Amino acid sequence: MPVRPPLLDPPFNIVRVAYVDMAVTDLAQSKAYWVDALGLTITEETPEALYLRGLEERCHHSAVLRRAEAPACNAIGFKVWSEEDLDRATHFFKSQGLAHSFVERHGQGRTLAARDPFGVPLEFTFAMDEADCLMQKFGAHRGGRLLRIDHVNFFSPDVDESHDFYRSLGFRLTEYTAMEDDRHLWAVWMHRKGGVHDIAITNGRGPRLHHAAFWAASVNAIIDLCDQLSTTGWLKSMERGPGRHGISNAFFLYLRDPDGHRIEIFTSDYLTVDPDLKPKKWALRDAQRQTLWGAPAPKSWFQEGSLFAGANVREPARAAQPIVAP
Amino acid sequence: MPVRPPLLDPPFNIVRVAYVDMAVTDLAQSKAYWVDALGLTITEETPEALYLRGLEERCHHSAVLRRAEAPACNAIGFKVWSEEDLDRATHFFKSQGLAHSFVERHGQGRTLAARDPFGVPLEFTFAMDEADCLMQKFGAHRGGRLLRIDHVNFFSPDVDESHDFYRSLGFRLTEYTAMEDDRHLWAVWMHRKGGVHDIAITNGRGPRLHHAAFWAASVNAIIDLCDQLSTTGWLKSMERGPGRHGISNAFFLYLRDPDGHRIEIFTSDYLTVDPDLKPKKWALRDAQRQTLWGAPAPKSWFQEGSLFAGANVREPARAAQPIVAP
Amino acid sequence: MPVRPPLLDPPFNIVRVAYVDMAVTDLAQSKAYWVDALGLTITEETPEALYLRGLEERCHHSAVLRRAEAPACNAIGFKVWSEEDLDRATHFFKSQGLAHSFVERHGQGRTLAARDPFGVPLEFTFAMDEADCLMQKFGAHRGGRLLRIDHVNFFSPDVDESHDFYRSLGFRLTEYTAMEDDRHLWAVWMHRKGGVHDIAITNGRGPRLHHAAFWAASVNAIIDLCDQLSTTGWLKSMERGPGRHGISNAFFLYLRDPDGHRIEIFTSDYLTVDPDLKPKKWALRDAQRQTLWGAPAPKSWFQEGSLFAGANVREPARAAQPIVAP
Amino acid sequence: MPVRPPLLDPPFNIVRVAYVDMAVTDLAQSKAYWVDALGLTITEETPEALYLRGLEERCHHSAVLRRAEAPACNAIGFKVWSEEDLDRATHFFKSQGLAHSFVERHGQGRTLAARDPFGVPLEFTFAMDEADCLMQKFGAHRGGRLLRIDHVNFFSPDVDESHDFYRSLGFRLTEYTAMEDDRHLWAVWMHRKGGVHDIAITNGRGPRLHHAAFWAASVNAIIDLCDQLSTTGWLKSMERGPGRHGISNAFFLYLRDPDGHRIEIFTSDYLTVDPDLKPKKWALRDAQRQTLWGAPAPKSWFQEGSLFAGANVREPARAAQPIVAP
Repeated sequence: MPVRPPLLDPPFNIVRVAYVDMAVTDLAQSKAYWVDALGLTITEETPEALYLRGLEERCHHSAVLRRAEAPACNAIGFKVWSEEDLDRATHFFKSQGLAHSFVERHGQGRTLAARDPFGVPLEFTFAMDEADCLMQKFGAHRGGRLLRIDHVNFFSPDVDESHDFYRSLGFRLTEYTAMEDDRHLWAVWMHRKGGVHDIAITNGRGPRLHHAAFWAASVNAIIDLCDQLSTTGWLKSMERGPGRHGISNAFFLYLRDPDGHRIEIFTSDYLTVDPDLKPKKWALRDAQRQTLWGAPAPKSWFQEGSLFAGANVREPARAAQPIVAP
Repeated sequence: MPVRPPLLDPPFNIVRVAYVDMAVTDLAQSKAYWVDALGLTITEETPEALYLRGLEERCHHSAVLRRAEAPACNAIGFKVWSEEDLDRATHFFKSQGLAHSFVERHGQGRTLAARDPFGVPLEFTFAMDEADCLMQKFGAHRGGRLLRIDHVNFFSPDVDESHDFYRSLGFRLTEYTAMEDDRHLWAVWMHRKGGVHDIAITNGRGPRLHHAAFWAASVNAIIDLCDQLSTTGWLKSMERGPGRHGISNAFFLYLRDPDGHRIEIFTSDYLTVDPDLKPKKWALRDAQRQTLWGAPAPKSWFQEGSLFAGANVREPARAAQPIVAP
Repeated sequence: MPVRPPLLDPPFNIVRVAYVDMAVTDLAQSKAYWVDALGLTITEETPEALYLRGLEERCHHSAVLRRAEAPACNAIGFKVWSEEDLDRATHFFKSQGLAHSFVERHGQGRTLAARDPFGVPLEFTFAMDEADCLMQKFGAHRGGRLLRIDHVNFFSPDVDESHDFYRSLGFRLTEYTAMEDDRHLWAVWMHRKGGVHDIAITNGRGPRLHHAAFWAASVNAIIDLCDQLSTTGWLKSMERGPGRHGISNAFFLYLRDPDGHRIEIFTSDYLTVDPDLKPKKWALRDAQRQTLWGAPAPKSWFQEGSLFAGANVREPARAAQPIVAP
Repeated sequence: MPVRPPLLDPPFNIVRVAYVDMAVTDLAQSKAYWVDALGLTITEETPEALYLRGLEERCHHSAVLRRAEAPACNAIGFKVWSEEDLDRATHFFKSQGLAHSFVERHGQGRTLAARDPFGVPLEFTFAMDEADCLMQKFGAHRGGRLLRIDHVNFFSPDVDESHDFYRSLGFRLTEYTAMEDDRHLWAVWMHRKGGVHDIAITNGRGPRLHHAAFWAASVNAIIDLCDQLSTTGWLKSMERGPGRHGISNAFFLYLRDPDGHRIEIFTSDYLTVDPDLKPKKWALRDAQRQTLWGAPAPKSWFQEGSLFAGANVREPARAAQPIVAP
């Protein structure tokens, strides 16, 4: 499985992952968690949805929580460079025979909705309504003092194919694991914005969202969040960590929101803007790729995820290999 | 100026500095600062006074803010080991010919008020009303997340004499500076509770309170407080720091409350419980004793202080030597 | 099981836990771990022993590693207030019918060796050779930047009896758990020096040392140590954490040295000098007493410990109750 | 002075600032500072030069220290996207009538040297020799644990013109100050890589380098560096800070190397990849733009800088306005 070089001239220009749109079953509970406990800020609240952003974000939302009968991830949103990129994107999805259509999204400019080859719901927009930056309103910082969305991570039943697709969109590989025969990818971390990832894709029943990640300012902000969650009634929401990932080098904490959606609080990865950056390969049997300090993740972390609205889940193409932990 | 060994068998047993009682001119403003900005907790509020405590303190108050016509420090309070120690203290002050009398203090047990030889108002009590410990109510921590009172620092017109007095009460010297001829003390740091100091005394017009200090959990708590104070209208209250003291090794931040009372936020000194701990001498010309990193303190920090209620201020016995900074 | 008030006038004056004397089987390996990895400083090295201290300690040692055939804890050392306290201690152990004798200990003054009622080897001394304080030699700080010994923790087959014994020595209870019928103690945290503990005692096969703990300057020093241990060949030495204890509120990391001796890196407990401080009771079924954030400790942490030289281990008097984790 | 939108389709693609090439007068002293004290890593050492990199950098150097008779900045180096961009760059500089030529640079691929309109020496390359990433070799981290180069800052005698030039190269403005009549720029922060800046330009005698900045992992890494520098003989090298900038929100420390070259240690700015990010304007009279916490910078910080090799310094086009501090 030779890893191919990045596609440096993609069909349209994706800037970064921009938001997650989540179906939740109890908006009041979700608000208590995402806003009061985690510290995201409400840009707008309607009876049907909460539009949230991080402290440094100057746009309308990086998370939309939408009232629904059942939990799901409705869409992963990406920001593109310009309105012209939406037209190029339309052309691309058409040429690939993939579902796509323009949709209305509150607080956003013209938005293209599309599906990846496994049905993952993607959205692309070039503009959002503006919002105030709260980064230096330190007196109002709460919870994990989350600054911005960082990435999403999802299960795919065929990581090779998923990787090829996102590579064809210009996502560049930074780190990965391969199956033991080295002929197939097990998991990939791919970016557009210059960090370790905007998206990560792992082998497993899918497509399912593994988690959405928000950036915290420091290790200490994450430790403080642990202290707060564990003593304000949210102990059970703490699934894994805090700890350091081998992969990405980031300091992490994994949480489950009231609907079971997994959220990662994440900080301290590294700069990846160089187009000739060589992807780093980790051995599947090296448990330190998961947790540099050795503490195993719980079973739930490996097995559970959120359904994508409108996508059919299937078993992975290749029998899952033993993972190291737990 | 040979430093004498500590008096290991003092006339009565002082446990620690316990509170400061401050006269303030606008309780609402003081509350905005001490409670909303710094994060001390209100145990009790009356039209005439605020009784405040730190997050780990289980007693009624470590700071009393009392409405008055003019700012002052009404008293420095100490906790003694037992009620019997109050009687021993009475005997001691009587034998020294120093003013003393039992007084009523809200939220406290029997309390002895006395004066040191320069008129510094001291209070001694063995008991306080109980209050909840908020140390693990992390969701309610605010501002500098102050945990407890740590020490007070005051100017004396004769540090030799002040040192002798507090040594005779069992305070043990941990660090000091001496005048250049080495025949007189310039400043002393003395403790009862096992840290670098419960009281510090500096040469200067006095007696005047230099500052009261509260303990923060970490360097990061102090950095966070800087960010908050500077962006919530309290920029002018930041007088000096953050930085590291050479003396005591502590990480510090100096503030001025709305009446000009100086408050230190302090963390990370060291353990001093050993009775044979040798005091550390610093050269007056070594600016790193003040700030290990070299940044000078402003003039106000060297010159200004709070009057003690009922005490007459006089010039120092020995002409002040040049201090290093500013 | 009503907890009795502390004995405020003990038979002799113990200042603090002062050192652990450990039998190790390979001094070179032990040095690689305790010095190179953890960052303790060598005061003196002989073919038979390493004398180590923390960065702020001005005395000859807080840990002695002694070459031996089999691993063990040779003794727990305490500092007493004065030489006279050694005589008072002698009288005490004699009156209790407990083994005791004066011994020679390198780097220490006159030293009394004794046994507690279960055979735990104790040593008492009032003086040690002096050593340089390295607290402000920041350029030489390494590993976990450990500052000083904080406490020891051991298993006892009868915590009620052990607690009574150490209470009779003046140790004061700060936190504890009781068995479900509330008639017997399960574990106790007791101090002399003004922190949460100099010693902790837990129900179990014993006497056996559970761990010796060293104080780190900050949460960040402990996180840095995790990063270092896990990437310098010492991953397997990381047994539990980092995390926050409910009991003591401290931030912790548990390690196992090359002989399996458990070491805790510890920071951020609270001040306990008040003689009227009320002990805090935790329910045995409350897993947050162990880890505030919920991650369970591994089985080894509950079961394994170091033998005390010359002490017979026996089963606990009362059948061990189910512990919460793992 | 209406700020114009960024040029989103520049003549060639600059990825990021890549290195500074500094003339130093004593390589041994420079090594003691940049390597032993600050913690940069030597990739290669010759009698004439030191090639240094940060812990996460996988390329040959981000700082070159070159033996010379007099201190200077020889060049600011940038990485371009591809070899073709060098040809486009050649075309660009030719079209602008600016000096340019291909040069040999050790450890780099084909390199174009050029001058900006004020004579600032620029270099462009698309490739460097590879080096090991040391980010997870935590046991080898030293000093400030610097991870990578972040930006350079220089004085220009005409910020309007400099800004126009770098805008025409595709640098995008993130923050700025304007003169009081609002018709001219005072200082600009411009980026390519997605942080607040790759370059900053300030009004003043110039061109002169104000500083080169390296990224540290955390506030705590910078505090630790302060403790180390101040106690290992480098106290005088600490010029300003630590503190928080209003502009960029970064936590900073300014240092002077043995030749007086200014180095900033920098962390915690924010993501700027959005092409529609609105530049933030700060009032010149707002001292918090410089230091959020209010402590003034010393005079030297405003006045001193390093000469650029081969560039003529001239007075600023517009009389310098009063700056707020000191």
